[in-house]
Amino acid sequence: MASTAQRKDSGIASADALLNATSALMTERNSVDVTFVDIAQRSGLNSALIRYHFGNKAGLFMALLERDAGGTFGNLDALVEADMPAPQKMRHHISGVIKTYYRYPYMNRLVGALSIDTDSETARFIAERFTKPLAAAQKAILEQGVREGVFRDVDPMLFYFSLIGACDHLFHARHSLKYAFGIDEITDEMRRGYADHITELLMESILLHR
Amino acid sequence: MASTAQRKDSGIASADALLNATSALMTERNSVDVTFVDIAQRSGLNSALIRYHFGNKAGLFMALLERDAGGTFGNLDALVEADMPAPQKMRHHISGVIKTYYRYPYMNRLVGALSIDTDSETARFIAERFTKPLAAAQKAILEQGVREGVFRDVDPMLFYFSLIGACDHLFHARHSLKYAFGIDEITDEMRRGYADHITELLMESILLHR
Repeated sequence: MASTAQRKDSGIASADALLNATSALMTERNSVDVTFVDIAQRSGLNSALIRYHFGNKAGLFMALLERDAGGTFGNLDALVEADMPAPQKMRHHISGVIKTYYRYPYMNRLVGALSIDTDSETARFIAERFTKPLAAAQKAILEQGVREGVFRDVDPMLFYFSLIGACDHLFHARHSLKYAFGIDEITDEMRRGYADHITELLMESILLHR
Repeated sequence: MASTAQRKDSGIASADALLNATSALMTERNSVDVTFVDIAQRSGLNSALIRYHFGNKAGLFMALLERDAGGTFGNLDALVEADMPAPQKMRHHISGVIKTYYRYPYMNRLVGALSIDTDSETARFIAERFTKPLAAAQKAILEQGVREGVFRDVDPMLFYFSLIGACDHLFHARHSLKYAFGIDEITDEMRRGYADHITELLMESILLHR
């Protein structure tokens, strides 16, 4: 008979396997439209385990978001608090956001699906857990840059939307990349090129040119 | 008995009414998940008319995209050909893109739904009809700016993705605006503020600072 610890371990293992399968399917399809049947097939596990671990689709999606992005907020807090000039912090931040979208290109779709298709409590939770801390960190870095006399004064909310939209779109609009530009796969090199491009774009727009 | 011309007129009128209802529903819901039943209810017309006019959902979506964005490409061609400095052209272009997303906030979702959920022929058509002309116009303006010695040399494809992503995101992520920033409605003033912000951001990043 398995011990409680072993049962707990295998419970975590199956939850992880379900999240991995969901993540892989969403990445391949470039869409968050995946069914419990798809996930069960992909993971080789019974779909009843999805309900057991996550309750419903919203629970599964929240757990995936937490797994993919939740861990980055500790680093973000540390970055904001670090003894480092604001431009350097902002560059790190932008490259971190792009890396996250590169690894989990379905991220913004997931946030959208949870915020639009579910109840407003979920949408509010997502905003508190992810959007607000991200926007607050950017605001702190922007204000530091103004205090240091190197950034011009920009509206942090508008900056948030332009940063997230710009960082995400290459990964979000894979169909355009494929059919309009003939590019099937985003390589690590292209990801770095896009990160450099967006960083340049955003930094040039906030740095004071003296 | 109605004349052929009258019948034709009323056919156009009902097609228009169906497109208007679809557009209104997508705007309200901030989602392209609308059913034929919803559209019939909203327009007060029989849902069989959707099949009659547009064939299927993809046909309806394509017609809506054509109605909303198709007409702008004539203006875009004229802008590219105009006798006007490149920075001025780019500013006009950016503000035009933002105006389009403000009027039809579901635009990029529509392109996504048509490109991901339908056959690759549709995705290819969308790319040829919308994405490529947009990217080509931007490329022409960027090249003009380099020839004029006022723009630095940027990758037009990366520029395309950053421009579209940044322009779209405020309208796309209405849920974040609502739950993270407490803003329920995008006013005309906020739209103009965002247009100015994005224009500044993109222009600062491509203009050579001498």
